[in-house]
Amino acid sequence: MLIVKKFGGTSVADKERIFNVAKRCIRDYQNGNDVVVVLSAMGKYTDELIAKAKEINPNPSKREMDMLFTIGEQMSVSLMAMAMDALGVRAISLNAFQVAMHTTSNYSNARLKKIDTERIRRELDDRKIVIVTGFQGINKYNDYTTLGRGGSDTTAVALAAALHADACEIYTDVDGVYTADPRLVPTARKLNAITYDEMLDLATLGAGVLHNRSVEMAKKYGVPLVVRSSLNESEGTVVKEVVKKMERMLISGVALDKDADRISVIGIKDAPGSAFKLFNTLAKKNINVDIIIQSVGREGTKDISFTVAHDNLKEAIELLEEYQEVLGFERVDYNCEVAKLSIVGAGMMSNPGVAAKMFECLYNENVNINMIATSEIRITVLVNSEDAVRAMNAVHDAFGLAEA
Amino acid sequence: MLIVKKFGGTSVADKERIFNVAKRCIRDYQNGNDVVVVLSAMGKYTDELIAKAKEINPNPSKREMDMLFTIGEQMSVSLMAMAMDALGVRAISLNAFQVAMHTTSNYSNARLKKIDTERIRRELDDRKIVIVTGFQGINKYNDYTTLGRGGSDTTAVALAAALHADACEIYTDVDGVYTADPRLVPTARKLNAITYDEMLDLATLGAGVLHNRSVEMAKKYGVPLVVRSSLNESEGTVVKEVVKKMERMLISGVALDKDADRISVIGIKDAPGSAFKLFNTLAKKNINVDIIIQSVGREGTKDISFTVAHDNLKEAIELLEEYQEVLGFERVDYNCEVAKLSIVGAGMMSNPGVAAKMFECLYNENVNINMIATSEIRITVLVNSEDAVRAMNAVHDAFGLAEA
Repeated sequence: MLIVKKFGGTSVADKERIFNVAKRCIRDYQNGNDVVVVLSAMGKYTDELIAKAKEINPNPSKREMDMLFTIGEQMSVSLMAMAMDALGVRAISLNAFQVAMHTTSNYSNARLKKIDTERIRRELDDRKIVIVTGFQGINKYNDYTTLGRGGSDTTAVALAAALHADACEIYTDVDGVYTADPRLVPTARKLNAITYDEMLDLATLGAGVLHNRSVEMAKKYGVPLVVRSSLNESEGTVVKEVVKKMERMLISGVALDKDADRISVIGIKDAPGSAFKLFNTLAKKNINVDIIIQSVGREGTKDISFTVAHDNLKEAIELLEEYQEVLGFERVDYNCEVAKLSIVGAGMMSNPGVAAKMFECLYNENVNINMIATSEIRITVLVNSEDAVRAMNAVHDAFGLAEA
Repeated sequence: MLIVKKFGGTSVADKERIFNVAKRCIRDYQNGNDVVVVLSAMGKYTDELIAKAKEINPNPSKREMDMLFTIGEQMSVSLMAMAMDALGVRAISLNAFQVAMHTTSNYSNARLKKIDTERIRRELDDRKIVIVTGFQGINKYNDYTTLGRGGSDTTAVALAAALHADACEIYTDVDGVYTADPRLVPTARKLNAITYDEMLDLATLGAGVLHNRSVEMAKKYGVPLVVRSSLNESEGTVVKEVVKKMERMLISGVALDKDADRISVIGIKDAPGSAFKLFNTLAKKNINVDIIIQSVGREGTKDISFTVAHDNLKEAIELLEEYQEVLGFERVDYNCEVAKLSIVGAGMMSNPGVAAKMFECLYNENVNINMIATSEIRITVLVNSEDAVRAMNAVHDAFGLAEA
C-alpha cells in the first residue's frame, strides 16, 4: 500500500508531537507500506512570519510573502526527517522545488497544476519515508507560491492522486466527521463514511473538518480520503464517491452556521434588473451573499432579503445606503440574531419528504423559519439565534442521526 | 556599474538594520548601478536552528541540517525585498534554487561549481535590486547544500565573478583591514589597499575580516574586493592583485594569534620516517599542526616541536602518550603560554632584510623567540604570551606601519 498522511500545524507544534507523528508514520512503514507524509508549518509559526513581515512592510508583496511563508513547512519537514532518523528509520524531506510541485502563477492563492512524482518514487523505492512540504508550490517563473486556505490538505490529496495512493489520511484534532458538532449536539455521532458531495456541503457550511478545495480534488480524482484524529487511534471517517446503502442514512449531518446576518432591502422597484443591480453592487466589493429570498411588496415594489457573513454586515449596509437612490428602494433593515441551520445528505435526492420532515420537526419545536434555501443534497433554513441549538438538536434527533 | 554587496547576519539582525542596509543598497541603485545583494541569516538565527535540530536529534544528518539551515537566508532575503518595496524600490529575492547555484554534493561543506546568471540578469535588466541567499547551494541531487564557514562571502565573490561585476563589497563590523588589531595596537592604521596574497595570509593567521576561501576565489577570478563597514561610510580596504608601488609598504600588517600551544616531543629516534609517523598520527585525528621545528638531541635522537590550536592540545598530548612506544620518544612537553606573531607583506619578497629587521626589533625589546616559520610573504615567530602585545606594537612601529 502507498499511504499519504497529512498532519497539520498543531500536530507538529513541539518536539513531543513531532515524535508522535514520526512513530505513527513509522508503524505504517514497518508494516511494509510506502509512506508519504505531508506537513504544515509548526503551530503558530506562520503567524510569527506574518508578524515579522508586517513589521517591515504593512503591505508586503504576495510574491515575497510566499517566499517567506514557505520556510515554515521546510522547517517542519527537515525536523521530522531528523526525528525519524533518531528513531532509526530512513527518511528524506522534500520541498516544492525538489518534488516539483507546479502551480498556477498567482501568489498566495495558487492552484496545483501538476506534480512530478519521479523524485518521490525514487526515494520510496529506496525504502525511505518521504516527507513533503504542504501548502507550497512553484510557478512558471520558478518562484514559490502558496495554495491559500486548506492548502496542505490540497497538497496531500493532489499527491495521493498523482501517486495513485491507496489511501490519503488527513489527521486533525477531531476523530472524524460527525452528524453534528458534538459541542452543540450531545447525541452527535461519528460517521464511518460520507460521500464527497455530502462532505463538500458540510465543508461549505462551516461544519467541515476539511477544506472544500481538497474535497473537490479528492472527488475529481477519486482519491479515497480518511479523516482521522492525530491524538488517538480511532478509525476516523472515510470520504468516498458512493457510500454503501447499508450504512447510508437519509441525511448525514446537521450543520449550524452562526456567522450569518440577515439584510432586507424593503420596497425595491419591481422592475427587470433591480435584483441584478443590487447583488452586482455587493459583488463588486467582494461581499458574498448566501440565502436569498424575494417577496412581493406593496404598489409595484418587492422586498429582497439575503444573508452575509457578520464581518461584511457594516460594509454592506453602508454600500446599500450609498446606492439607495440608484437602486431605488425604500429602506434597508437587518438582523444579527439569526443562524443558518442545514441538513446535508445524498439520500435526500431520492426522498422528497425530507424537507417536509425538517419543517415539521421545527414546527413541533415552535421554531420560526425566516428563510429557506435548498440544493440537491442540502436544506438550509434561517432561524433565530436563540432557537438555533435547540432546533439543531431536534432536527438531529428527528432524522435518527444519534442511533445510526 | 554592477555591484555585488554582501551583508552578514548582524547587519540584518533587526528591522532598523534591515532598513539601513536597504537604504545603502538603494543609494547605489538610484545612482544608476545594477545592484545584487547577498545576505546571511539574521543575527543568531542559525544558532536557533541548530538548537531546534539538536533537541530532536543530537546527531542530525548533514543533508537535513542543510535543508533546515537554508531557511535562515530565505527569511533574510524576503524581508529585505519587503523593506526595499516599503521604500518604493523594486526588488526581488532569490534562493539557491531560483538562481541555480550549483555546488559539489557534500552537505555542510560544499564548494560552488557553477552559478547560472540568467535569472539574475533578467531581473537586473528589469531594473530590480536582486537579493540572493548567501551560504547555500544545490547539488546534483537537487538538494540544498551549505558552503561552510565564510560561506556568504564566498557566495558574494562567486556571484561577482559569474556576473563580471565591477565591484564586490563585503560589509562587516570593522571598517576595513588594519595594519594590526586596533584593540592591541593603538597606532594601527587602516589600509587603503592590500593584495590578495597578503589578505590570504592575514585571513589564515586569524587576523582577517574575510574568510580565506572567499579571498582565494577573488584572487582566482580577479574579483575586485572591498571590505567596508556596515556601520559607517568609511572607504574601506580594497583587495586586489597588485597594489601600486606608491601605496605599497614593505609589510602590510602584523597579526597576533593567541590560540597556539607549543608541544615538544623530546628524544625521538633520529631515523628516517620518524617525523612522518609522528605527524601522520596527529593528522589521522584531524589535529592541525602549524610551525614545526626540529633540533638535534642527544645520542642519535632529535627533538620536534610544533604548535597546535588550544582546543587540540589535550587530545594531541593523549594521542602522543598512547603512541609513545610506537613512535619511540623519551617524553612529551608542552607550553600554553605562547602566541604566534606574524608580519605579512608582498613587499618582503624582494627585500631580504625584513626577517633580520623583525628579529632585531624583538631583540631590542628583549623578547625571546621560541620558534620561527616563514613563507614568501610572511614571517611568524612564537613568543611568550606575556611579551606578545608588547612585541606586536614594537614590530608594528619598527616597520613604520603607523605612519604610512
